[in-house]
Amino acid sequence: MTKKGDQTRSKILDEATRVFNRKGFAATSVNDILKASGTTKGNLYFHFSNKGEIGLEVLKREKQAFISFLDDVLNEGSPGQGLDNFFKAALEKHRQQDFIGGCIFGNTALEASDTSPELAAFVASVFDDWVTKIAQNVELAQRAGQIRKDVPARDLAEMIVSTVEGGIMQTRLLKSEKPLQHSLNTLQKILELRV
Amino acid sequence: MTKKGDQTRSKILDEATRVFNRKGFAATSVNDILKASGTTKGNLYFHFSNKGEIGLEVLKREKQAFISFLDDVLNEGSPGQGLDNFFKAALEKHRQQDFIGGCIFGNTALEASDTSPELAAFVASVFDDWVTKIAQNVELAQRAGQIRKDVPARDLAEMIVSTVEGGIMQTRLLKSEKPLQHSLNTLQKILELRV
Repeated sequence: MTKKGDQTRSKILDEATRVFNRKGFAATSVNDILKASGTTKGNLYFHFSNKGEIGLEVLKREKQAFISFLDDVLNEGSPGQGLDNFFKAALEKHRQQDFIGGCIFGNTALEASDTSPELAAFVASVFDDWVTKIAQNVELAQRAGQIRKDVPARDLAEMIVSTVEGGIMQTRLLKSEKPLQHSLNTLQKILELRV
Repeated sequence: MTKKGDQTRSKILDEATRVFNRKGFAATSVNDILKASGTTKGNLYFHFSNKGEIGLEVLKREKQAFISFLDDVLNEGSPGQGLDNFFKAALEKHRQQDFIGGCIFGNTALEASDTSPELAAFVASVFDDWVTKIAQNVELAQRAGQIRKDVPARDLAEMIVSTVEGGIMQTRLLKSEKPLQHSLNTLQKILELRV
């Protein structure tokens, strides 16, 4: 693909990401994406065959960015420090976006679960990788005596991911960091996380 | 209103609830509701002025049912038993609906947060009442020695609600009870809940 073609494709995906986050996947039309990206219909359909394909490409890019974000924060410092970095970075991310948009994986989970099996399967793989990465840190932190050991690492990791997603949901609803911040503080306390 | 008018109104709200749960609020059109309820356009617009009004009425009915469900489960047995009832009943509710639809308040939270201030404010009031009711049980359970006392009741209640919502999201995504069940089991263990 030409350099200009690549740029157009990226621009469409950038703007589609923004519109999906704000309005949701189902409520977004191809016309919304055209308008936001300033692209012609011909250009858009040269790159993508339909909205579903744009949705999947957006999720693939977001997954890549999210996994690399996770690797960065979880691997900086000790395993317990990595978990603390993750909590702080999650809160900071939503603060920076003014609590608008929420988590694209959580949003798509709710939107696609009963209607778009392909998107749902992709998002399920994101949650699985996410839980696995958190579980690895939890296990190392348990061995290092930085977190309670009486509950298996994978169980704690599943609960951490559930709590973060539920906290993001309420923080987005209230446009305030409090629900997420409180849930994360309590989580740290009852996990007995020491950094 | 005549008895028949009441029945039509109820029927529209029943079917709208089902369609909203499955497709989401934004992706549902008034035509979808007409088709699902077998009502004429004239009849629907006699009862409701637009889709937003139907959405708010649906949420009001669901809130009433949810609060009465909460009162029932939380007040049966000791305060700790009430919390255990709530966890079991939440899992059972989603099992019975084959993990389709999820939680209408969580769904609306994600859909309406950035687009429908009136619906968002209403859902925020549901979360607030929910947290308050759980916190009351937690506080009583703490006094009765049925739950850990080193974290304030309201903080534990906020984390419980976040965990339940995140668990429902993943359970709906995977069409399996495991994510919610695991998160609730872990929650009970680290809350040191004794019934």
